[in-house]
Amino acid sequence: MGPEPTASEVLAAIKAGNRRALAKALSMVEDRIHGYQELLKQAHLMSRGVDVIGITGPAGSGKSTLVSGLIGEYRKAGKTVGVVAVDPSSPFSGGAVLGDRLRMQAHFLDQGVFIRSLATRGSLGGLSAAAGDFVTLLDAAGYDVILVETVGAGQSEVDIMKLADTVIVVVVPGLGDEIQAIKAGLLEIGDVFVVNKADRDGADRTAAEIEMMLDMKSWSGWRPIVVRTVAVTEEGVPQLFEAVQRHGKYLVASGEYERRKVASRSAEIEAVLEEAVKTAILKPAVEDGFLRELASKVQSRELDPYEAVSCLMQRYGFPLIQCEKGKRVTPK
Amino acid sequence: MGPEPTASEVLAAIKAGNRRALAKALSMVEDRIHGYQELLKQAHLMSRGVDVIGITGPAGSGKSTLVSGLIGEYRKAGKTVGVVAVDPSSPFSGGAVLGDRLRMQAHFLDQGVFIRSLATRGSLGGLSAAAGDFVTLLDAAGYDVILVETVGAGQSEVDIMKLADTVIVVVVPGLGDEIQAIKAGLLEIGDVFVVNKADRDGADRTAAEIEMMLDMKSWSGWRPIVVRTVAVTEEGVPQLFEAVQRHGKYLVASGEYERRKVASRSAEIEAVLEEAVKTAILKPAVEDGFLRELASKVQSRELDPYEAVSCLMQRYGFPLIQCEKGKRVTPK
Repeated sequence: MGPEPTASEVLAAIKAGNRRALAKALSMVEDRIHGYQELLKQAHLMSRGVDVIGITGPAGSGKSTLVSGLIGEYRKAGKTVGVVAVDPSSPFSGGAVLGDRLRMQAHFLDQGVFIRSLATRGSLGGLSAAAGDFVTLLDAAGYDVILVETVGAGQSEVDIMKLADTVIVVVVPGLGDEIQAIKAGLLEIGDVFVVNKADRDGADRTAAEIEMMLDMKSWSGWRPIVVRTVAVTEEGVPQLFEAVQRHGKYLVASGEYERRKVASRSAEIEAVLEEAVKTAILKPAVEDGFLRELASKVQSRELDPYEAVSCLMQRYGFPLIQCEKGKRVTPK
Repeated sequence: MGPEPTASEVLAAIKAGNRRALAKALSMVEDRIHGYQELLKQAHLMSRGVDVIGITGPAGSGKSTLVSGLIGEYRKAGKTVGVVAVDPSSPFSGGAVLGDRLRMQAHFLDQGVFIRSLATRGSLGGLSAAAGDFVTLLDAAGYDVILVETVGAGQSEVDIMKLADTVIVVVVPGLGDEIQAIKAGLLEIGDVFVVNKADRDGADRTAAEIEMMLDMKSWSGWRPIVVRTVAVTEEGVPQLFEAVQRHGKYLVASGEYERRKVASRSAEIEAVLEEAVKTAILKPAVEDGFLRELASKVQSRELDPYEAVSCLMQRYGFPLIQCEKGKRVTPK
């Protein structure tokens, strides 16, 4: 084996369409292998700020099938597509959700499409940071549009959607009334709402409910569109694609595009900050047993959690914080 | 109006069973109103390290109905119960998920039960930190057991479950095959698995699948139990209660109890650290426009996100980090 290729060599290979180099670079970034920051730094300079489309919604709503349909529409329009599928993972299953990726298999042999799962990572790595890094690499690789799919409706999924210029929220009729909670959590971030499995009973009601909730807010500028689809038969998928295109044109015409891009860069900075702090403070504290020691003291009521945090910050270099009983963690 | 009561006065009132004082203290902590840290600090010293039972699972799986059933079982056993229901929220709906709380209404007039929603909070407050604080306050108030319910299966829900001594994971038959993803994500954290709506088609298969996945791992100590319930008719709820009790006894007998408590204190410290960093770095950077300025520079490729984080840390007091091109965010 020769020496490891440099970051610029890796990126030149990626830019030239070497899919194996891209896959390897993504793994390097996902696993935070030494050198990944230099790679990201150079990838960032090569990136053009490509269109990013986020797709989220509850489990079982058919997001992957919709993504597959959207890939088809983009390909028909002559665009290349990168896909980041954020998957929950487990030591049991080993990571990837096979079913999801199978649904996209129609596109696996297409050189204009690159699909990659991003597994839920341990507490020392930020999922949003990794998702942002994947977008940067796929952007640097030259894909015209990047689709980011997340499963679920938790805070981390909402955070990941901050990376997107256009957010598609998928719901299905008849998932029980707790679906209200999901809708509520996702309602504020959607630019396009999809009622998938629209051939099911209750689709009309679900669509009407979303419209009603949207009507409760006064909109200046873009008022979210509600589209009905049956993803497995591709019914409504062209209309969804059209809605996404319309939102994209609105973003540019209104000047909102630049504002969104800056907002998603803010979200990216936040995610990197979170990871940096974990790397600088939590990782050493886990490794040298100090976190465990503090946790035992909190458990025996020698310290409270806020004092424990002061101790952590003092030991690992956060300034102006005193590790004494009664002192508080405060900004300057 | 007289002067604001001190933290010790508030806590004395809470300890004496004043529910209004408890509700007010929880709101103060949820909204991070000035003085909340002193309140938490004193509550922490009063807390006894009560049993915490976590219940999680996908939307629509009937968790709230199960919680209601479990409350009944604990009350029959003579125990008082505090409930923290972590709800997604939205500016549209105003926060609480009414349906969930209605399902628990049988217990609203019971002085031995206190039920409180915790809404998903903005990015500057950590949901796990707030959930941990709620447990501390309910513990200080003297409840015998605390149930923490979360909707969804994202990373934040998994983080919240780290607060629990016993984790109940609820699944239902027939939510489509993406349910597999959820099962995978939650499989590693469950001590007791509930197949709810067990009168539905597919319940046998779902229970068998979980058993099979559990069998793929070798267990030393506690091997998770699978229980079937029909929460609305309370079928299987006594068996679920029994399984939770058995796990509690196992924890004590094996010495695992102390280890879990220390682990949940670690999780609590992590959550507080995350919030402290956001308060110390992100909040001022948002307020004085510096984050926006950095994000614009990242968007125009003057900086990469890692350099932007170095700039943030330097400005708001993180040491040893240079805000120069090419320098990296690294621990000591």
